[in-house]
Amino acid sequence: MLPRGRPRALGAAALLLLLLLLIGFLLLGGDPEYGRLRGASALDGDPMAGLWDHNRSACDPWPQLPPKCELLHVAIVCAGHNSSRDVITLVKSLLFYRKNPLHLHLVTDAVARNILETLFRTWMVPALGVSFYHADQLKPQISWIPNKHYSGLYGLMKLVLPGILPPGLARVIVLDTDVTFASDIAELWALFAYFSGVILLWLDRLRQVGWEQMWTLTAQRELLTLAATSLADQDIFNAVIKEHPELVQPLPCVWNVQLSDHTRAEHCYSEAADLKVIHWNSPKKVRVKNKHAGSFRNFYLTFLGYDGNLLRRELFGCPSQTLPEAEQLQRALAQLDEEDACFEFRQQQLTVHRVHITFLPHKPPPPRPHDITLVAQLSMDRLQMLEVLCRHWPGPMSLALYLTDAEAQQFLHFVEASPVLSARQDVAYHVVYREGPLYPVNQLRNVALAQALTPYVFLSDIDFLPAYSLYDYLRASIEQLELGSRRKAALVVPAFETLRYRFTFPSSKAELLALLDSGLLYTFRYHEWPQGHAPTDYARWREAQAPYRVQWAADYEPYVVVPRDCPRYDPRFVGFGWNKVAHIVELDVQEFELLVLPEAFTIHLPHAPSLDISRFRSSSTYRDCLQALKEEFHQDLSRRYGAAALKYLTALQQPRSPA
Amino acid sequence: MLPRGRPRALGAAALLLLLLLLIGFLLLGGDPEYGRLRGASALDGDPMAGLWDHNRSACDPWPQLPPKCELLHVAIVCAGHNSSRDVITLVKSLLFYRKNPLHLHLVTDAVARNILETLFRTWMVPALGVSFYHADQLKPQISWIPNKHYSGLYGLMKLVLPGILPPGLARVIVLDTDVTFASDIAELWALFAYFSGVILLWLDRLRQVGWEQMWTLTAQRELLTLAATSLADQDIFNAVIKEHPELVQPLPCVWNVQLSDHTRAEHCYSEAADLKVIHWNSPKKVRVKNKHAGSFRNFYLTFLGYDGNLLRRELFGCPSQTLPEAEQLQRALAQLDEEDACFEFRQQQLTVHRVHITFLPHKPPPPRPHDITLVAQLSMDRLQMLEVLCRHWPGPMSLALYLTDAEAQQFLHFVEASPVLSARQDVAYHVVYREGPLYPVNQLRNVALAQALTPYVFLSDIDFLPAYSLYDYLRASIEQLELGSRRKAALVVPAFETLRYRFTFPSSKAELLALLDSGLLYTFRYHEWPQGHAPTDYARWREAQAPYRVQWAADYEPYVVVPRDCPRYDPRFVGFGWNKVAHIVELDVQEFELLVLPEAFTIHLPHAPSLDISRFRSSSTYRDCLQALKEEFHQDLSRRYGAAALKYLTALQQPRSPA
Repeated sequence: MLPRGRPRALGAAALLLLLLLLIGFLLLGGDPEYGRLRGASALDGDPMAGLWDHNRSACDPWPQLPPKCELLHVAIVCAGHNSSRDVITLVKSLLFYRKNPLHLHLVTDAVARNILETLFRTWMVPALGVSFYHADQLKPQISWIPNKHYSGLYGLMKLVLPGILPPGLARVIVLDTDVTFASDIAELWALFAYFSGVILLWLDRLRQVGWEQMWTLTAQRELLTLAATSLADQDIFNAVIKEHPELVQPLPCVWNVQLSDHTRAEHCYSEAADLKVIHWNSPKKVRVKNKHAGSFRNFYLTFLGYDGNLLRRELFGCPSQTLPEAEQLQRALAQLDEEDACFEFRQQQLTVHRVHITFLPHKPPPPRPHDITLVAQLSMDRLQMLEVLCRHWPGPMSLALYLTDAEAQQFLHFVEASPVLSARQDVAYHVVYREGPLYPVNQLRNVALAQALTPYVFLSDIDFLPAYSLYDYLRASIEQLELGSRRKAALVVPAFETLRYRFTFPSSKAELLALLDSGLLYTFRYHEWPQGHAPTDYARWREAQAPYRVQWAADYEPYVVVPRDCPRYDPRFVGFGWNKVAHIVELDVQEFELLVLPEAFTIHLPHAPSLDISRFRSSSTYRDCLQALKEEFHQDLSRRYGAAALKYLTALQQPRSPA
Repeated sequence: MLPRGRPRALGAAALLLLLLLLIGFLLLGGDPEYGRLRGASALDGDPMAGLWDHNRSACDPWPQLPPKCELLHVAIVCAGHNSSRDVITLVKSLLFYRKNPLHLHLVTDAVARNILETLFRTWMVPALGVSFYHADQLKPQISWIPNKHYSGLYGLMKLVLPGILPPGLARVIVLDTDVTFASDIAELWALFAYFSGVILLWLDRLRQVGWEQMWTLTAQRELLTLAATSLADQDIFNAVIKEHPELVQPLPCVWNVQLSDHTRAEHCYSEAADLKVIHWNSPKKVRVKNKHAGSFRNFYLTFLGYDGNLLRRELFGCPSQTLPEAEQLQRALAQLDEEDACFEFRQQQLTVHRVHITFLPHKPPPPRPHDITLVAQLSMDRLQMLEVLCRHWPGPMSLALYLTDAEAQQFLHFVEASPVLSARQDVAYHVVYREGPLYPVNQLRNVALAQALTPYVFLSDIDFLPAYSLYDYLRASIEQLELGSRRKAALVVPAFETLRYRFTFPSSKAELLALLDSGLLYTFRYHEWPQGHAPTDYARWREAQAPYRVQWAADYEPYVVVPRDCPRYDPRFVGFGWNKVAHIVELDVQEFELLVLPEAFTIHLPHAPSLDISRFRSSSTYRDCLQALKEEFHQDLSRRYGAAALKYLTALQQPRSPA
């Protein structure tokens, strides 16, 4: 049994949940009936007796779980890229065990809000509501407190949460971002019941004193008497509790199992068979040395790598709270014909992938009128391209990565282990979570494109290395050609390929031409798919001194620089084939000039064929479905552009090799 | 509430658990004290009242969970490759929620036993015991029963389990392979308590009647009266229960939530917030159409893709039951110096990877004196090589795949979708589960090598395509050279490479030489690492008409054919570099002749550099660690072979390019 009501019970081990309860007390005012009803029974005898007994089984008397379908509220303060990732792991563990509808109250900075809004919108978890609150607006209330704790100002925001959450909200569980649930949060919610009688009593007192004034005065006094230079939120809670011990009721330690050398914590989890919440509050996090660290780490890693798509499950027996988007999507999916040979293609197009934008810390580029972001997409098998790409492109990049949750963690370690990648803050990595059998190439491109923050984008592919000078040269060309403002054009970057594993990248056009002549380089896909780049007119490019205009022709798919508000890629093209071709058609029908730049070039490196290209080659169904998609694309094009779209259809109908 | 004791309560919905209880009753005889004690209280009033109430919360009166650290017993009947995979998913869900030590009693055929013994040995889960029982020995007791159920004879084995399990075993929970736990099995175990009084009563009766005689007579009678041509185990249980309704007590339906159109089942899970066990007993399995199928499927997929390594967690507060191997391993890992620059290398070498041999159905090759298995290893990024490799090598293959649990499922779908791969029963796929940052190339090779079932092995790499005739030619050569019996030799298959994505594979040595002369083919790594194959003496090979002997030289790493009892690869070499070189040294020091075959060839296809090779090139630490491993290898070699090892050390010390 842990001693109750004694100061030494109020150490670090219990603070997360003290916080929970304090906030609970403060907000319970909005729901007096609840408190009164429960209060009565709680005052009969000593309801706390035995509560802290570590040997109690799950079936000893225990507060009733909240009614089925009752909405539980959780508040989390979160700022920045790294905390956003932590929050997602916490939320996965919450969702895994929960059986009630949940509402998350997220106090975020702009970065975390951008990330988490996109994530929850695309995650589409049933019976999960999310509200955002501006952390910036809270800063003035706490910025006078000196603090050095690693969670900084954002930690202190928990002190002022009552002021920002809706007044009608009666109870909320406040969680740090570095906790992992190993049980249903409803069990924690149920503990509110035990304290309600006491809370009513305290609420009166709190109303007289005023919580805000109480902690503010305490903090100010602490600063005076201790001559402290730094106060974390826990220091302030500690001090308030010391002055007002009647405010607090410690929770069973299984609800806040911390990884440290703290003897009480170890006593707790060596005896408690059922851990409820693990708190990674050591600065060493999962690397902490501890007898059971391995086991705790495994709980954490479970949710770190857990496929978040699996949490899109409905609650049983609660009124459906399906989001309108999700409902629409389900209808569309239900209308698909499973017997259709192209069912997989159609299903993949409709799939809404979870998207985690700026998965790693990222600094947006300063606004510059001719700046360009390289846009590309990749999966795990192309990670090794990133370092070399960074060496070739010193400017901003926006990259969509198609990964499982577990692969996203491998990717994170890959970047951390690479000095080249770690040094680049201008490369934004957007994780699109895998779902379905086909690579959603154009959906990925659209995610990367939507997140590009410069006025222009270079639409590339991950296997290409641009000329070292390309970034500078393109910016100069944009300025010179007055692209965007005066001229609606797509700048074509001629594409080449090498078949060598190791090869010395040409440092100039002259060197490139020499390699071409010696057979060490080819124009891109010269052997397999010449029509893809034929209109670029490599013969003319050899001699060209100035940009020259070329005409669209069937199957043209050059790499281009365009303003970032260019048309999006058509998401119907999934897997291999025709995904860029359709985009160039779209540019042409919207009357973008196609201007080839005389000094620009990009070179494709060798790699094994992708699974999708293998399937394309080996499966006639795959080829037939691609053909069907192309025809539907052209029908849509005619519908949108009328007669202007006719030439593409005519071109399509001329007999040519497939794809 | 489900009606109790009425025949219609005995439908399909409850059978799994009827089974559990029946077996429980039968075996409780070994533990009469337990039964008597509980029996008394169970007979006071009606302990069952309210038990089946779907609205009961987790904290209504409920039987005590078993004491902390009590060992729970589970029996499963499992046969064949596919059921073995199912069992693993079931066991993962068990282990995820369990807090007690578990013992699995596995009744298996030879295939499943081979797979599961290897798996559990390498899984090293603390507080998990496993015993195996021969299913074949049970067959005579049940093979007289005609049955058509898809689980066949193995389903019927549940009837005779009492006869095969240890007599001292008091209680056991019997599970089908197609169930997924969504809760702690201890809660199910706890239900034994409710029935103990009744069980004592029944035990007397059962002792008089004899269970074996009871079900046998019933089954025989059913066969007579129904003129049935087929009886599944459930049919027999149903019939016995119909005659002896006092034997059975249905369980709450949350313990057997089935996916079907059965209205009772739907009634159960629409009201029960806490599912306990999901039973995939529809033949359509996860493809079943059902209102909540999505949610159920997600529970199943959770454990299908769950990283089994995370289940290697210790139980808290129970006496340590660490396996001796695991303990030894932990000591070795603890002795490593984390500050050592090569820590990752040393840790990776010591890692015991979970191994799932013959992950997919596999038919061992018939015994043939000169047969050869192609041995190789790969990860996801090389899956697309499998089809083309199957076209080039019509003989047996043993392939080790380095995958996560989730990737193993992707791999399964990949094979199922490929007519070429599905048609091949002679390719054995062994999944080695990923753990650690470096690719354990030699451990993988050793797994594939150990599972080769022919007298000879061709030690290849996944990026190589053998000549179409190689399989036949090698067998003929082995016979002709009297390899193994008369001659201790390694047959060298000369290696070439193409840098083309698409290329027409030469159908003869003459065609290969023409391609070599035209520059479309090279000798392998001619540009980057000529010493790797220099001793093969390609100039001599051009002209050779008969096998010729070559001498070992430093860094030689040819692809060879050897008897399958050849030396194993040195597992210290992880990641890129020197892994094959060390193996050839080992062959040479053991005095294998190196014989180059004049008509044999294999060709390497292009691919992007692996992550490990990229790390090798970019990291001096990586190169230094490889150097350290090489030196340690030579020290060990000297220790084992004395003066005979001297020449390798001398060769190593001559200055050369790294690796």
